[in-house]
Amino acid sequence: MPDPDILVPAADVTAFATRLLDAVGVPPTKSQLVAESLVAANLRGVDSHGLQLLPYYLEQIEWGDMDAITDGRVISEIGSCLLYDGQNGIGQAISDICCAHAIRIAAASGLGMVVARESNHFGAAAFWAQKMADAGLIGIVMCNASALVPPWQGKEPRLGTNPICMAVPGGEEHPWLLDMATTTVAAGKIFKAKINGQPQIPPNWAMDAEGVPTTDTETALAGLLMPLGGYKGSGLAMMAEILCAVLSGGAMSTELGGIRFRGKPVRVSQMFLAIDIARFLPVAEFRARMDRLIRIMKTTPPAKGYSEVLVAGDPEWRMEQERRKSGIPVGPGTWKALCEAGERLGVRAPVR
Amino acid sequence: MPDPDILVPAADVTAFATRLLDAVGVPPTKSQLVAESLVAANLRGVDSHGLQLLPYYLEQIEWGDMDAITDGRVISEIGSCLLYDGQNGIGQAISDICCAHAIRIAAASGLGMVVARESNHFGAAAFWAQKMADAGLIGIVMCNASALVPPWQGKEPRLGTNPICMAVPGGEEHPWLLDMATTTVAAGKIFKAKINGQPQIPPNWAMDAEGVPTTDTETALAGLLMPLGGYKGSGLAMMAEILCAVLSGGAMSTELGGIRFRGKPVRVSQMFLAIDIARFLPVAEFRARMDRLIRIMKTTPPAKGYSEVLVAGDPEWRMEQERRKSGIPVGPGTWKALCEAGERLGVRAPVR
Repeated sequence: MPDPDILVPAADVTAFATRLLDAVGVPPTKSQLVAESLVAANLRGVDSHGLQLLPYYLEQIEWGDMDAITDGRVISEIGSCLLYDGQNGIGQAISDICCAHAIRIAAASGLGMVVARESNHFGAAAFWAQKMADAGLIGIVMCNASALVPPWQGKEPRLGTNPICMAVPGGEEHPWLLDMATTTVAAGKIFKAKINGQPQIPPNWAMDAEGVPTTDTETALAGLLMPLGGYKGSGLAMMAEILCAVLSGGAMSTELGGIRFRGKPVRVSQMFLAIDIARFLPVAEFRARMDRLIRIMKTTPPAKGYSEVLVAGDPEWRMEQERRKSGIPVGPGTWKALCEAGERLGVRAPVR
Repeated sequence: MPDPDILVPAADVTAFATRLLDAVGVPPTKSQLVAESLVAANLRGVDSHGLQLLPYYLEQIEWGDMDAITDGRVISEIGSCLLYDGQNGIGQAISDICCAHAIRIAAASGLGMVVARESNHFGAAAFWAQKMADAGLIGIVMCNASALVPPWQGKEPRLGTNPICMAVPGGEEHPWLLDMATTTVAAGKIFKAKINGQPQIPPNWAMDAEGVPTTDTETALAGLLMPLGGYKGSGLAMMAEILCAVLSGGAMSTELGGIRFRGKPVRVSQMFLAIDIARFLPVAEFRARMDRLIRIMKTTPPAKGYSEVLVAGDPEWRMEQERRKSGIPVGPGTWKALCEAGERLGVRAPVR
């Protein structure tokens, strides 16, 4: 039996995370932003992009692999397009500035596209797309990531899980929000199958070390993640790689580091596209149309074995309502790492 | 044994298609454009979006379900955003104008986004994204389509195969070009399995009429196409539906007609986004970086059972080199339909 999760109220764990970041020299507004972005992912149930990242962020800063202070700088802004140099700053700090630029430019000219290079892990893409949606715009976010996935028909990692994310302002229905890796599943799902003692995983999740599809959990763990739907997933990952890294002049594919590797920067690139709805039709009309589309989907008769049809963002929105009340369950491994960091840095954990 | 394909040189079949369109009253430049767009798909091996569509286009025009003459009209152009009313015109005619607007606007301000409503089938999305790439821009194209696919966990069609397409100017490597439906496979692949006497299809292609995944070919034919990777494919299809139809104020989901149904317009919406590379970095540098990225992918050691790694656009590019020499193999059913249209309209077929 693994240790149980530690249940912590969102506010307490946000404060704890903020103080840990303060303690390694992150300026207060940046500490707060990073903590909020991670806890937001936990609230939505996306624990892979929540507090479990914080120990790595702290290490990156303590080792000098990431610059806790810099705001990065604008390289160029020409018309609707802005190129940003993250200067190896904290991903969330860079993304916050880039999002603000995208929103500002879209407000001025209808579309704003910001591409940042030399950035770092920015948490969940959803946090940034939502920021644009909260400003009444359609927000599209992509990034490249450490090479963990082979291109289709290959057997060595050359692409990241490169996510594609879009958020749309909501009407009466809660906001539609897609945030998906371009692999069939996240690596965490295969780990979870092992932890839960499941010897088999569904087809199309993973491949063995020779790139042959497998449903054996152990083989998959020693193997490779499968691109979503085979060649299509590789195509979508390349789309993100091109719009982020090729266009930014940043690190591509195997040139990236990773948050779990010490001694070199991550060098990730990120793309933020904001679309001003009002240039096409009145925002109220758009919101009403979104409601109608969502309802068309949600009133589809459910397939056998399901009780309802959901749209992108539904499961996470429900989880957030629940966790705002009940608190965030932090996994025992993550909790231990956070508490150890707290002891090292002289920051007291909120519980135990 | 089915009848063999008819092998016709691209120029001859383009001329034949043009004359058929002329004969139903399509203005000459539009006839030529439609014929070229369809034959371009055949050349690339995407026969589902080639000449097999022409008999339906002709019917649509003869029945008065599609307006052969109109150019549509600009509803609004504000900053980088243009909204277009296709006025039920020929999809290719509308798309050609919309692409030109997207290119013009991107040249002026860095990004150009054109959304058209009340349009018709535009052939393969790739043709239009390539047009933008040929102009030195990154071209992204999406459209919605007749509802044939259930949303994930549903069992009634509510979404089209809504493609996502991106084309990028090439360097020394030939241009990268992704054009993918947001289902695991096109319906045509399941028909092909039946025609070829294969009782089983791979997992994740299709579901039975109750929305339960199936690998039985017959059950799949009577059932439903599966969204790419389950809920992710539904999310991507919704992304296209939102950027095309919600934003354009056009028909959504089940409100669309279809090219195979007579007596009502198709009412599809299309989105064209052009990105001016030069606003981010010199185009020559971008092209060199694309070459480098493509080579990183293509030098990946192949998985067991494969001899090489391909990137998006490779198989179609190769097919095009071949078919430009050997001619286009037109399926017997399509050939019969085209010849019957020719007899009805007094246009002689180029062979037989």
